[in-house]
Amino acid sequence: MKKALIASTALVLTAGIAAADVTISGYGRTAVDYQEDRGDGQEDTQISSRVRLNIHGTTSTDQGVDFGARYRIQWNQGDAGVDNVAPGQIYVTSNGLTVAVGNVGTAFDNAGLIYESEIGLISRSYGNAQGDFYAYSSTGYGDDNGDRLGVAVEYSVDALTARFSYVDPDQNTTDSTNEELGLSVDYQWNDIALSAAAVKNAAGTADADKYFVGAYYTMPGTDNGIGLNYIDEDSDADNYGTTIVLYGDYVVAPMTTVSAYVANNDADGNETDTAFGIGARYDLGGAYLAGSLERNYEENLRGDFGVRFDF
Amino acid sequence: MKKALIASTALVLTAGIAAADVTISGYGRTAVDYQEDRGDGQEDTQISSRVRLNIHGTTSTDQGVDFGARYRIQWNQGDAGVDNVAPGQIYVTSNGLTVAVGNVGTAFDNAGLIYESEIGLISRSYGNAQGDFYAYSSTGYGDDNGDRLGVAVEYSVDALTARFSYVDPDQNTTDSTNEELGLSVDYQWNDIALSAAAVKNAAGTADADKYFVGAYYTMPGTDNGIGLNYIDEDSDADNYGTTIVLYGDYVVAPMTTVSAYVANNDADGNETDTAFGIGARYDLGGAYLAGSLERNYEENLRGDFGVRFDF
Amino acid sequence: MKKALIASTALVLTAGIAAADVTISGYGRTAVDYQEDRGDGQEDTQISSRVRLNIHGTTSTDQGVDFGARYRIQWNQGDAGVDNVAPGQIYVTSNGLTVAVGNVGTAFDNAGLIYESEIGLISRSYGNAQGDFYAYSSTGYGDDNGDRLGVAVEYSVDALTARFSYVDPDQNTTDSTNEELGLSVDYQWNDIALSAAAVKNAAGTADADKYFVGAYYTMPGTDNGIGLNYIDEDSDADNYGTTIVLYGDYVVAPMTTVSAYVANNDADGNETDTAFGIGARYDLGGAYLAGSLERNYEENLRGDFGVRFDF
Repeated sequence: MKKALIASTALVLTAGIAAADVTISGYGRTAVDYQEDRGDGQEDTQISSRVRLNIHGTTSTDQGVDFGARYRIQWNQGDAGVDNVAPGQIYVTSNGLTVAVGNVGTAFDNAGLIYESEIGLISRSYGNAQGDFYAYSSTGYGDDNGDRLGVAVEYSVDALTARFSYVDPDQNTTDSTNEELGLSVDYQWNDIALSAAAVKNAAGTADADKYFVGAYYTMPGTDNGIGLNYIDEDSDADNYGTTIVLYGDYVVAPMTTVSAYVANNDADGNETDTAFGIGARYDLGGAYLAGSLERNYEENLRGDFGVRFDF
Repeated sequence: MKKALIASTALVLTAGIAAADVTISGYGRTAVDYQEDRGDGQEDTQISSRVRLNIHGTTSTDQGVDFGARYRIQWNQGDAGVDNVAPGQIYVTSNGLTVAVGNVGTAFDNAGLIYESEIGLISRSYGNAQGDFYAYSSTGYGDDNGDRLGVAVEYSVDALTARFSYVDPDQNTTDSTNEELGLSVDYQWNDIALSAAAVKNAAGTADADKYFVGAYYTMPGTDNGIGLNYIDEDSDADNYGTTIVLYGDYVVAPMTTVSAYVANNDADGNETDTAFGIGARYDLGGAYLAGSLERNYEENLRGDFGVRFDF
Repeated sequence: MKKALIASTALVLTAGIAAADVTISGYGRTAVDYQEDRGDGQEDTQISSRVRLNIHGTTSTDQGVDFGARYRIQWNQGDAGVDNVAPGQIYVTSNGLTVAVGNVGTAFDNAGLIYESEIGLISRSYGNAQGDFYAYSSTGYGDDNGDRLGVAVEYSVDALTARFSYVDPDQNTTDSTNEELGLSVDYQWNDIALSAAAVKNAAGTADADKYFVGAYYTMPGTDNGIGLNYIDEDSDADNYGTTIVLYGDYVVAPMTTVSAYVANNDADGNETDTAFGIGARYDLGGAYLAGSLERNYEENLRGDFGVRFDF
């Protein structure tokens, strides 16, 4: 409580301490996005763009504890504007331990290898998890989820990173049966990266439990590698089956990486159990061109080609 | 009007002069918030968080007049996202005189001592004013208040600060009976701070007139002090009664301040006329921990504990 | 695809490369705005304010190609808040050629002289185009226009700037009859600036075709000048007639410019075919004062006076 009334800045809002503690980063991307049989009356070929902005305010205490707050402003092609700045996140970090509150990244979504089979400019793969679970929300939660509360913990020491997350879909209600709990662990062992994760009541759906195990081997002295992911989404509450994806990356020329995957999903209702994709990426130094072609479980083709840059 | 068409940047938006003139500041906070008998089907104990971001663009003319514009982006726990960036404010400052237009801080809300009895991380006190008046709006005005217009003037000279504010709830209509007018004065006299304020048609309610007088005495050579606030909200248009609050701050150990208050409100319908609270704050240097316990006029307990940091 | 799991920042969002690549600029303005016979139950005299913020993230590749992304946050007096951050824009520039995707400036709207007869603080002229065409959207597109897609190309070489733009009101539908196409060219020849533009299916209205030709002559050795604009908005789909506006600027004293125009519009339904206006602007160095008086085609008076500053 400040008592000094001299030189009041009351009409003038709090000025803050130093702008140096606020950083803004993000990326822009735009691509041609083809989707065979996109839907009645919809163009199969469209432009897909995104602008993402992360605003990040930080401060450090005298004891070396770091505090931070985050916002994200994200626009996707098809949005009439940015309706909502994403809900805020607050975190504290010290000695490898990070605790975050609010709109947090979740343990399952942040598992180190869970999205590693993705290809193309838009970063997609049919070898990803098929169902839902909570993640950092880049836009608003939606009107029915205002009281969503997340808490996440991450601990990193040497080659190990462990994460725990808890998301209450509505912390205001006394009903507490559908809180999502997640856990993940990443470990680097020589040229092998290992990652495992589990989530209970995924996305607030009771008994929707999911499991993930993945490994990636980098060939010594190269950036080439091969990985395998196993994702189990077959529980009492959902029937997305089990997804296994084998994928790899190969540097075919300087700045040019080709990546590919083959995925198998055994859920009922698929036209075929096998999906696959191949993509290429060319690094411009500060930006990159990328494209991909994929066939999904309905045997429809999806492709993209475009450019992305980070700032 | 620029006439040069060479090197047009027409597709490219106005580039601005210097990023150095834009500062971003704010704070993050998160706390456990307990409210006895919060309401049917609602959790008494919740997490309450906030991320506030102030964006402030300024420029100075050759004559030494400073112009500025402000935005605020604020998220509170329970918001599904930031629906609205707060309405803008424009101001000009010169020689201690500031004039602001738009979403302005008001004279009554900005009176130097009016919130001085607040305690805890969330900065609350039952000794505050009980009813409504206009203030700087950290979020949108709400759909029914789009045409709200504020004008505020502040003048600071030596130990004196005086403020005047005018808020028209809807400047587009010809009806002008409910415009809020406010006035406040702060004065520092040796170890004594004095503050007084009045508001007419508070929050646009005809004849809702409110008055405030407060004083704070800082014990010489210390940061300890004691204060007394008197707030009269008993008019023809509202019946919040008169609130008197006695409060004090005591530095019990390095970095540690204990604050407490006893408040009396004589409005009809209170279970009891007396509310009180005690809080403590521990400074981390760049951040602080704070907590409080309060009992309200319905004899219900409220408590908080958490951390806040500014950036 | 990054494979390193050590020192994962998964809970912590992407940190970005350098804040130096993000610039924020904008302006604030506020004015008294008088409109004779504004409407039933509406005040003729109001305060009109605006705060505009441009957020601009850029990066350069090793080959010297520049990429950028933009957002705009704009509040106008009368908005209850900033409902929507404007849809994003992504662009790439190299050797004078710029290609932009998303919420783009259009060729017709960006024609170099099309708004040159504007006067006053709010920058208005009855000699402007009377009807609609697409332009960079400072706010959201509106709920019915989420799938709007724009592509714009600009090429500058020496004294010549050429622009092309394409806006699909809804790229998701297979209907493609109402896509707006625009073209404009600016050329500087000694003391004469020339500008021409055409737009087809303006604002997505089939057969709403518009044409513009303008010239501006700057008197040698001065900032005084005179211009003439011709705008044809008389097509099968709209009946805004033809607008001719003669305008000029004269530096009457240091820092002080007086501007005036006379406009003729031959559309049916006008009370009179002639509108005119006179304005003055006083440069403060970093900010300016400006005011204007205009009479429109209904013989009603409009006036403004206020201050604007850029940051």
